[in-house]
Parts: sequence; structure tokens; C-alpha cells
Amino acid sequence: MTSLRSQAPAFPAHDMSPRVLLGPGPDMVHPRVMAAMSAPLLGHLDPDFLALMDRTQHLLRYVFQTENRLTLPVSGTGSAGMEAAIASLVEPDDPVLVCVNGYFGSRIAEMARRHGGHVDTIERAWGEVFSADEVREALQRRPARVVAIVHAETSTGALQPLEDIVQVVHEHDALLIVDAVTSLAGVPLRVDELGLDVVYSGTQKCLSCPPGLSPVSFSERALEKLAARRTPVPNWYLDLSLIMKYWEGNSRVYHHTAPINMIYALYQALALILEEGLDSVYQRHAEAHASLVHGLADLGLEMLVDEPYRLPMLNTVVIPQGVDDVSLRSRLLTEYKIEMGGGLGPLSGRVWRIGLMGHTARSENVERILLALGELLRT
Amino acid sequence: MTSLRSQAPAFPAHDMSPRVLLGPGPDMVHPRVMAAMSAPLLGHLDPDFLALMDRTQHLLRYVFQTENRLTLPVSGTGSAGMEAAIASLVEPDDPVLVCVNGYFGSRIAEMARRHGGHVDTIERAWGEVFSADEVREALQRRPARVVAIVHAETSTGALQPLEDIVQVVHEHDALLIVDAVTSLAGVPLRVDELGLDVVYSGTQKCLSCPPGLSPVSFSERALEKLAARRTPVPNWYLDLSLIMKYWEGNSRVYHHTAPINMIYALYQALALILEEGLDSVYQRHAEAHASLVHGLADLGLEMLVDEPYRLPMLNTVVIPQGVDDVSLRSRLLTEYKIEMGGGLGPLSGRVWRIGLMGHTARSENVERILLALGELLRT
Repeated sequence: MTSLRSQAPAFPAHDMSPRVLLGPGPDMVHPRVMAAMSAPLLGHLDPDFLALMDRTQHLLRYVFQTENRLTLPVSGTGSAGMEAAIASLVEPDDPVLVCVNGYFGSRIAEMARRHGGHVDTIERAWGEVFSADEVREALQRRPARVVAIVHAETSTGALQPLEDIVQVVHEHDALLIVDAVTSLAGVPLRVDELGLDVVYSGTQKCLSCPPGLSPVSFSERALEKLAARRTPVPNWYLDLSLIMKYWEGNSRVYHHTAPINMIYALYQALALILEEGLDSVYQRHAEAHASLVHGLADLGLEMLVDEPYRLPMLNTVVIPQGVDDVSLRSRLLTEYKIEMGGGLGPLSGRVWRIGLMGHTARSENVERILLALGELLRT
Repeated sequence: MTSLRSQAPAFPAHDMSPRVLLGPGPDMVHPRVMAAMSAPLLGHLDPDFLALMDRTQHLLRYVFQTENRLTLPVSGTGSAGMEAAIASLVEPDDPVLVCVNGYFGSRIAEMARRHGGHVDTIERAWGEVFSADEVREALQRRPARVVAIVHAETSTGALQPLEDIVQVVHEHDALLIVDAVTSLAGVPLRVDELGLDVVYSGTQKCLSCPPGLSPVSFSERALEKLAARRTPVPNWYLDLSLIMKYWEGNSRVYHHTAPINMIYALYQALALILEEGLDSVYQRHAEAHASLVHGLADLGLEMLVDEPYRLPMLNTVVIPQGVDDVSLRSRLLTEYKIEMGGGLGPLSGRVWRIGLMGHTARSENVERILLALGELLRT
């Protein structure tokens, strides 16, 4: 075991210089969130911890702008929230419509198929968004019980308007699942006002928390569908009907051991958003985005997405002809300690993805990446 | 939002005095693990993070005592590892045998049913263990492709011998899944020497890490069964055939955003075990257990489980007649700041569960709980 021993230095000795994280997430975390995360552990049934769970739910309802009873963080990263949503609402042979205009739309479709759904998809090019008419036509062609769409496509930088689409979905007596992994707390997402049925997110985007939890919120209609299932959810770990019994009421039925420290971190991250105020947080994202786009234009760089549909927290920049994607991002990381994302799927090698999420959406970070890109593109 | 604001003080201001965690987990965490957890975030595709993942896998193979290629932490708590194991190996209509002698055996059976398995169970009273003959008879009565058993039943404190059972399972051409959530790094568990097919654990027991990850290890035979599935795993988030592609090789296909800081913590916790040496760690657990049992006997308290089958890290103590379970544990927590577990299911109100796990398995903690119990039982 001597060779193994030499591979295991104490963690802080491992050579890690801090990064400026301007990729698709995780982003940088407020020092108070880090401090909260390393507070001493409580048991998962300790009265103090149960009180903290209640408070975390209150704060989650604030950022989701909802009164939904089932509003809680699932114990996994954003994809666990996606799977909890699909596993809860899609039963074998259920007709499902998934709107696919990027990587995460495809993932939803894949999950819905694995859960036995009869999945129909409509598609738009990566970087574009759907109109309500397209969704209406699809539902007229083939009815669905569940429709899923991505609010903020992290793979493309496109912001999907939801107002008209949710109306169409409800007119066709279906439920709407919305992927808000990247949008929550970065752009307005008023869950109750819009009437969304299921929304899920992740902690490592605009909530500025480490990855590890996925906040979800279910409307009463979605809960009714969950309660009326013909078969049990084929996923015990993510069965929200069981998880709810631990998160609410006085009985607190043990389900699984909650990731205690991650919930400390989430609570503190949410408290910081409340302190600043959601509208100010949205405003800060919008300003950082505007100043980034302005600076990129000065460098001669173009955005992939048309102006009205650009995500402020995830900016897709077209890579100029003749520039080597991988080597530029590698130099950015090693020489400037700045992480920027590459493109996924059909956008691989075609775009960069610059994240300005949560705590990270500040002018100093915009200046950092503009300066670095300016230098690297000149050399 | 003023009322909400008053509910969201900054986290460290929340009144939380540190607990002595002597329940069924989480237990107390080494300060170096806490420090590692709050190190600055790296991106989940950062070369430094990928190197840390490799090192974490090396260390996990050491604590599992295995060369298994698929040895990695699943991004969820222990039950996520359980579900990853079941979802991978149990296909609809597969005959499955589950050995149930406590809460976690029942949970495995429940999961296997949800995944469409034809589940047969054999049962022993809570606190007892299975003989190889019982497993043989069950497999002769009805063959199974998969057998599942709990190594350390956290609900009862019983340690299940595995040597003979794994032979019987393999003679009947089935695969053995072992729940090692509480046993890993607390009692010897030599995965390759025993020939176990699938083993899963949790970070918040004898690894002395916060809850949030579930280390799993799959033998080549288990991987072959996974590769030969007739249907895709009906759980995208826990599909190990996808997760493997992120954890190994040079391609590093993105699956989901790894819980970065939890992996920092796990790495450091494993490095501490390597530093101390597995045999010394086992020895420390055995000594703490012996001194606890001795002290409990002096207080006139009896153990639930027969001596040869007692878990050192999870001690079930019979509650004396006339003692109020809930009020004693509540006083222990509020007056002494010591958490001790209550009984689950049929043992509710009948036993206490005293954990001495990982970093927590030390004489000072044994003395603390013996002193406190002595005082509380006198008053």
C-alpha cells in the first residue's frame, strides 16, 4: 500500500489555486455560504435541523415565488430534480410532449422514455426558442398528459418565454414541467403567477451554492396527478410522496439521511438572496450581462442568441474563425485561472459559454474575462 | 416580505450548539474533512478536479479492498447507492431474493419490487442474522438471479457473516448485492477476497464524512449483467453505465455536475483512513465497542444482539422497564447535547441505538455517553 499512500496527501496540500468560475456552473460561492456549510453537523431528526428545514422551505418558496406546499430540495444535483419530476408525473404509456432546442431538452426526452412514456418531441435549432403556436399544433396533432420545456437552456443560452405556452398546455388539459436549473434567481420566474405545475432547479447556478441539491416545486394539480398514479414511482430515492413526509408535518417519517451540510449552505445562499431582494438580484444579472455583451462587441465577438432571448447568466459567444477553441480555453484556465465553458453537441467548437451566475454576476468578473479574452485573441 | 425576512437570519446566527453525535449517523466529522469541504470550488471538468476524482477512486478501492474498476461515489446519500445497485441489476420480471432482518432489508425489497422484480424474501427476527443454509433453501425453493443482504443492519445492530452466503449465491449462479452502508471502514469487508458482486455504502457512517455521497463497487460479473440488460436502466440519474463514462478514461463524458465539495470531503476522509491504516481503524472501533458494552453492563443495561453478531459501530441497547424512551433521549440531547438513536419499527421504544462510527469511535465519547446515561437513569 506504499504506492497508494504516496497518492493520498492531505487535501489542502493538493495543489489547487482558486479559479474564477465563469462557465456553465458551478459558479463562485459567497464566503458566508462556505462558512455555513462547514458548521458542526446536526442529526437529520434533530429539532434544530427540522426547524432549519422549515426555514429553508420558506426561503425556497420566496425564490420560486410560490405558495406550493411541496417545495423542497431533492438530495441530488439538478438532474436528480429533473428525474424526480419525470418519475413522478410520467407513468408507463403516458403520452408526453418534450420541447427540444438543446442538450437538456434531449435529456428530458430520454428520461421520459426510460420511464415508459410515449414521447413526442418538437424541435428548434439550438439557440432558438418555441412559440405557443408550435406547442398548440403539437398538442392538437397528438394530445399529451405532460409537456416539458426548458426555461433557460444552459447548452445554448436561450431564454424560453413561458406565459403563452403554459396557457396552451392547460387548455389541452396537460401539466407543464419547467426546467429552471439555470434560470432560478437569475431571471424572473413567478411560479404561481405563471401557473407552472412542476419546476426544478439546481443549487450551483444562480443560487451560488455548491452543487448537490435540486430544489423542486409542485403545484396542487401536480400533486393530484402524483397521488392518482396507477403504479408506485419506480424510483424510491426520488419518490416525492415519501420525501414530503419527512419534510412536512409533525410526524417527520424518516426517508433518507438528508445531506445536512448542503442544506446549511442552501439556507445561507437563499438568505443572502432575500437580504439583497430578488428584484435587485435580477437587476444585477441583467447589468452584468449587458456590460459583458457590450465588451464582447468591442472585441468583435458576436452572440449566438437573438437579443430578446438571451440569458443574462449564460452567454453563448460565437468563436471567431481561425481561433482554436480548446487551446484558448486551456490557456484561459492555466494562465488566467478563469474557467469558461465550451459548446455541447452541435455547438461544440462553435461557441463559448460564459456564465455570470448568482454571486458571480458582478462587474469585476466581467472585466476579468474581457481583459483575458482581449489578450488571448490578440496573441 | 418583512415577516419572511425576520425568519432568515444569517446562518451562523442560527442558534446551534455542537452536538456529540452518537446516533445511527451522521457522526462527527474530522476538522480536516470540514476544511477540505470548504475549499474553493473547481469546475466539474477542471483537470485538477478530474485528478482528484482518480485519487478518490484509488482510495475507495483501498477501503473496499477491491480492484473493481467501477468503484466510485454515487451523487446521493446511502439510499441512492442502494437504488443504483437495484436499478442496475434488477430488470422487470427478474426473480430476486432479499434477506430481511431489519428496516433496510425491507427497503431493498421495496425498491426491487418498484423496479419490477419478482421478489421473494426470507425473514429473521430483528437483531438476528441469516445462515448460509437458509439462503440455500430459499434458492432451491425458487431460483433467483440476484440476492440482496445487509452486512450491518443499522436498525438492529446485527453483523451478518457473508463468507458462506456468497458461496451459496454463486453456486446458484446468482449475484450478491451487499448493503455496507454502516459497515464500510468499521469492520473488515474485503470485497475481492469475499467475491462480493455489488457493494454500496454511505459517507456519513464509518467514513466520517457529511451525508451526501454513496460509494459503490461493482465486480466484473455485475458489470456484465449491467451491460447485458434487455432494457435501459429506468433511472437516468443513477445509471452507472453513464456515470462510469464520466469517472473513467480520457473522454470524461459529462453526465451530471458532480457535488464538488462533497468529493473534496470524501477524499480527505479516505486519506485520513489510509493514514491511520484500515486495520487500526477496525481495531479502534472494536475497542470503543468493548468499552461501551462493559460500561453499559455496569449500568445494568443489556444488548439486544447476541455477542458474536454485534456491530461495533452501532450498539442496540435494551431500554430498561419503566424508563421513558423519548423523554430520556430528549434530555440527553437538550441537557448533555448528546444525540443517541431510538429504535425503528418493531424496536421502537424497545432499544436505543448508540453509534460509535469512524472518527467518533473514541474512548472520550464512550465515557461521555456512559456518564450521561448513568446520571439520567438515576434521576
